[in-house]
Amino acid sequence: MTRPLVLHPDRLFPSDPTQRAIARALYAEIRDLPIVSPHGHTDPRWFADDRPWTDATSLLLQPDHYLYRMLHSQGVALDALAIPRRDGEPATDRRAAWRVFAEHYHLFRGTPSRLWLDHVFAEVFGFDVALEGATADLYFDTIGEKLAQPGYRPRALFDRFRIDFLATTEGAHDSLDPHRRIRASGWPGRVTTTYRPDGVIDVEHEQFPDALARFAELTGEDVYGWRGYLAAHRRRRADFRAVGATATDHGHPTAQTANLSPAEAEALFARIVGGRWTPEDAELFRAQMLTEMARMSVEDGMVMQIHPGSFRNHNAALFASHGRDRGADIPVRTEYTRALQPMLDVVGGERDLTIILFTLDESSYARELAPLAGHYPCLRLGPAWWFHDSPEGMRRFREMTTETAGFYNTVGFNDDTRAFFSIPARHDVARRVDCAWLARLVAEHRLEEWEAADLARELTDGLVRRAYRL
Amino acid sequence: MTRPLVLHPDRLFPSDPTQRAIARALYAEIRDLPIVSPHGHTDPRWFADDRPWTDATSLLLQPDHYLYRMLHSQGVALDALAIPRRDGEPATDRRAAWRVFAEHYHLFRGTPSRLWLDHVFAEVFGFDVALEGATADLYFDTIGEKLAQPGYRPRALFDRFRIDFLATTEGAHDSLDPHRRIRASGWPGRVTTTYRPDGVIDVEHEQFPDALARFAELTGEDVYGWRGYLAAHRRRRADFRAVGATATDHGHPTAQTANLSPAEAEALFARIVGGRWTPEDAELFRAQMLTEMARMSVEDGMVMQIHPGSFRNHNAALFASHGRDRGADIPVRTEYTRALQPMLDVVGGERDLTIILFTLDESSYARELAPLAGHYPCLRLGPAWWFHDSPEGMRRFREMTTETAGFYNTVGFNDDTRAFFSIPARHDVARRVDCAWLARLVAEHRLEEWEAADLARELTDGLVRRAYRL
Amino acid sequence: MTRPLVLHPDRLFPSDPTQRAIARALYAEIRDLPIVSPHGHTDPRWFADDRPWTDATSLLLQPDHYLYRMLHSQGVALDALAIPRRDGEPATDRRAAWRVFAEHYHLFRGTPSRLWLDHVFAEVFGFDVALEGATADLYFDTIGEKLAQPGYRPRALFDRFRIDFLATTEGAHDSLDPHRRIRASGWPGRVTTTYRPDGVIDVEHEQFPDALARFAELTGEDVYGWRGYLAAHRRRRADFRAVGATATDHGHPTAQTANLSPAEAEALFARIVGGRWTPEDAELFRAQMLTEMARMSVEDGMVMQIHPGSFRNHNAALFASHGRDRGADIPVRTEYTRALQPMLDVVGGERDLTIILFTLDESSYARELAPLAGHYPCLRLGPAWWFHDSPEGMRRFREMTTETAGFYNTVGFNDDTRAFFSIPARHDVARRVDCAWLARLVAEHRLEEWEAADLARELTDGLVRRAYRL
Repeated sequence: MTRPLVLHPDRLFPSDPTQRAIARALYAEIRDLPIVSPHGHTDPRWFADDRPWTDATSLLLQPDHYLYRMLHSQGVALDALAIPRRDGEPATDRRAAWRVFAEHYHLFRGTPSRLWLDHVFAEVFGFDVALEGATADLYFDTIGEKLAQPGYRPRALFDRFRIDFLATTEGAHDSLDPHRRIRASGWPGRVTTTYRPDGVIDVEHEQFPDALARFAELTGEDVYGWRGYLAAHRRRRADFRAVGATATDHGHPTAQTANLSPAEAEALFARIVGGRWTPEDAELFRAQMLTEMARMSVEDGMVMQIHPGSFRNHNAALFASHGRDRGADIPVRTEYTRALQPMLDVVGGERDLTIILFTLDESSYARELAPLAGHYPCLRLGPAWWFHDSPEGMRRFREMTTETAGFYNTVGFNDDTRAFFSIPARHDVARRVDCAWLARLVAEHRLEEWEAADLARELTDGLVRRAYRL
Repeated sequence: MTRPLVLHPDRLFPSDPTQRAIARALYAEIRDLPIVSPHGHTDPRWFADDRPWTDATSLLLQPDHYLYRMLHSQGVALDALAIPRRDGEPATDRRAAWRVFAEHYHLFRGTPSRLWLDHVFAEVFGFDVALEGATADLYFDTIGEKLAQPGYRPRALFDRFRIDFLATTEGAHDSLDPHRRIRASGWPGRVTTTYRPDGVIDVEHEQFPDALARFAELTGEDVYGWRGYLAAHRRRRADFRAVGATATDHGHPTAQTANLSPAEAEALFARIVGGRWTPEDAELFRAQMLTEMARMSVEDGMVMQIHPGSFRNHNAALFASHGRDRGADIPVRTEYTRALQPMLDVVGGERDLTIILFTLDESSYARELAPLAGHYPCLRLGPAWWFHDSPEGMRRFREMTTETAGFYNTVGFNDDTRAFFSIPARHDVARRVDCAWLARLVAEHRLEEWEAADLARELTDGLVRRAYRL
Repeated sequence: MTRPLVLHPDRLFPSDPTQRAIARALYAEIRDLPIVSPHGHTDPRWFADDRPWTDATSLLLQPDHYLYRMLHSQGVALDALAIPRRDGEPATDRRAAWRVFAEHYHLFRGTPSRLWLDHVFAEVFGFDVALEGATADLYFDTIGEKLAQPGYRPRALFDRFRIDFLATTEGAHDSLDPHRRIRASGWPGRVTTTYRPDGVIDVEHEQFPDALARFAELTGEDVYGWRGYLAAHRRRRADFRAVGATATDHGHPTAQTANLSPAEAEALFARIVGGRWTPEDAELFRAQMLTEMARMSVEDGMVMQIHPGSFRNHNAALFASHGRDRGADIPVRTEYTRALQPMLDVVGGERDLTIILFTLDESSYARELAPLAGHYPCLRLGPAWWFHDSPEGMRRFREMTTETAGFYNTVGFNDDTRAFFSIPARHDVARRVDCAWLARLVAEHRLEEWEAADLARELTDGLVRRAYRL
């Protein structure tokens, strides 16, 4: 006997009837607003090529480390899930992998992955029975069939999902060809990129030398000299802007910034490219580069996003066998107040600069981030991020930032995902959680209902567009 | 069309009907209790001179860095708000500044400033339309007219606000003349001071040399020798007690304490006054002085308040142009367990000593502060402070401290404000939030209703008076 | 006039009627499940000897530092509560001590101690009036009378409490005689032990030399040489398993682990036993021993529990007069991500190893612990611990871990108590709080009701038995 799959229309709303009624009314006003997705990791080739996806496993399971990290944590081998190793996809049949996933679907109870997937299953694929071992094949077959239909190609779904804007992320050393092809194709979908230069800034990244060589090639600059290196950044930022980018993104281990003199910076850079750097040099260089990027943002108007605090590739054995981004990035405590000061000494007073701060350390929300954003004109708070991109995480974000930073120093929602099919689900969860929070404020007479309606629209649309300069 | 301004009688109470009914009943019992304000920053000259205030901008906007930091964060120039620079008030007309504030009033949605101001507008000034651009002039004119009436002078409002006790804060090097004049005037209002010696303890404060010179002048002691310096503190503490002070206040960057031998302390002090100190010396001296102050409190019975964890004057450019206390103090992570041990080794077992601990780092509530206060006889927890002095902040304080420290190791509410008009609003918010928390405990059968009623009264009155020895 | 003592059947359930109804239904299904207590500190001699307890003070007050730390914090002298000093029990009459406790019972309002004690008073002793000064003697007399009855002996209560499994904790240098006697007695109660080797690992512990000598004696190994020392651990682990132990427990100041080469470890151990160690050596040795213990767990299948983050014996004067475990252990900030990596490099991928992590630093729940447990196969999250073993603490645990780690990387409840009479109360609180959390998820349509019922049973029974290999 299978279980029904039903998305309750009031899901994620408070059960208190007063709050629920308000949340419902607020949500009704914004549920159908188009999706603005200014930060994510979808593959631009999908939209450039518009080729069909093939099967449930390669579409939903293989690229989603949220899913397989949980299965891995419960002892399921990644090979059994057909997760690619450095040397290629294991021999496991994709249907068999899907079955393993389906049999373990109960592990996701209480997690956002479950909310997102059920939404995808019900709304995108039209399932009315729940995923479990008994329905694994039904799911695998149905998804495979649907994906072969024209309506399930990337561009068709982009329209069906009512996506108004979608940013991908490319490295400073990556090709922008897919984006150029999208633009050249005449397809009206607004897909653009984001400038993420970590690969040519983080000398501790294993691919730094290659990335730097490619950076030189793409820009024609002498990237091994400090002036040429900065010029190469300026050139690539312009390239990115030429295909529509409005923002940069910086995923550093810490939020440390620096304010070195030109001579000090040049000497540091010489050690970095000369291979004579210490770990302290590597950190200082990343720190200095945040300030350099902020300076360039003052020049060219690009919005700057800072995402610190992830200890990457924590599981050394897994990194050896499977490479990066395999669900083994673990957050660490992150300091902002002292770390950001050197950069803010340089650009803190700029009124035309926007720096969006993210965190994986919720203890910094009320203590550091909200007070910083509630003072400096250039600072805004990015939404609850990564592990905190969940109903409870989003609720804590609002509870811990609103009273000091207000709503207007926040920037709406980021889906931050490579899971294209889940984008509507993720935005829907964010909208519902925001409406639930606003409903509580109204129900406790801390906000008028008309103000909450105005804010619901701002959080969904206005703040995002203004923050990202869309 | 203007919007009505209405303070809902059930504001800040839970919307769940069971909890709301209990909260209402608890609140009804304590709403009219007189205000006891043992820690704040109002100007004693107001009560000494009883001169009228003049206008909305100088009364409500210019002194309130909670307000203009938020406007500043959204790109409004401080000059446009008539915020005084180091070299005086900018040319901006005060009415024009008020208009700018009114036009941006929506920025405060969801913040405690909004709750406090609406209370002031409705209850103190009698407005029934909301503040916005369209009502800016009405507000400015009406407030100006009211302030000219005898009923809006400081002493009249002190009575109208039902303030039973009000402590201001003066530095060790400040004059107590206003307080002496209050006492000499025959006015029965209980306004007193608090001994805040930071200016003569923190050698990293830019005014330390001047403060020390003034300290010498006021006490006649040789404050440049360790014994004379301590004697000067004793003398000034006695001066403060003579005008009614019962407490001291210590606003250090960290909670670090020290327990040096007399010889070590003397040698350290010689470096401090000799100008040969390092940043480590400065920190160690502050640390040692907390222990010295605790020792003096054992002698003279003054309650000690420790407020650590603020990174002062974070925005260097703003500090240069506008000076201190301009909304650019940002909290930092704060450690207590190890930091307080040296002092507690000396005074931890004293049963006649009270040390009230505050924090800007909520992660210390359940982890360090509640366990410390739940063990040491001399320790009590100050209320949710500064950025956390808000409905969500106060709720988190109770949720994270009550189970380990109980209610009886807390000390009621501090308004901690220089915004005299908002004092009733702030106490009202605190009373409502406490009643909401108690109501939840009753509704979940964790407390009997009669106990909650008893506690509501204790939190509002009894614990404050006992903790501060009033 | 005395006050009635009534345990409300819906205590700890949300007051929202929707959630309450769901919580009630979930709880009804699990309230009568037997108690599985895999981690605690009861005295095995109680069950070996089955002698009666004598009086309320020695049963409930003297061993419970949760209780007397709170009274101490409010100025009550430990002598007045008959708390034993290092040199014996003070002269205070036990009845008089109980009266002092009763007169201060209001201090526990809002604390879990109050919930547990009222449960003990009502359910175990049958009181229907509340404890207060006026009922102190009634309580003392009644409890004394009951304790003399056969039904109040340890084994009878073990049955009455429906305890299915109870683990105590013994040191590596402790005798297992009581456990051997339990097994030899033919009594069918399942009481076993847990291997806690801190005493022979922590060289900073004042009893380390004695413990090591006893360790040598018990094992016949040369514990002063690295190989013999490790062999002694293996031998004692086998001894513990022989009386039923399935787990080890490690209460270190930090979560630091190390991965030294055999030569480095041997050299370090030589410094430790040679008395030439620094504090850094002491920490490094503890760190290395966690990895060694993990290796042995891979060999012998014992589950490993890591409890870091308590600053022991914070109050030096109290430690001098009263010794250890007197309510003066204060938590400190605790880092896991970096600290655990050396050990995880060695055993992280083991699928047959279980390491249960606890914390006193709630800021690590969502930031570090849930992501770690949500990735590594060997890691599980222990329940809210010590100060956080309370309704709000347990709620925060679920709110901050579930979305990333799921329910299945948690291990159910630990009562972690030496207060045998409170075991049913503590498990009841945990069951109620879990049902309340599940009820919220159901009421907000984040979980189906049948799933919540399944999870309630798992959290109470299945996960515990599987995690601890019972």
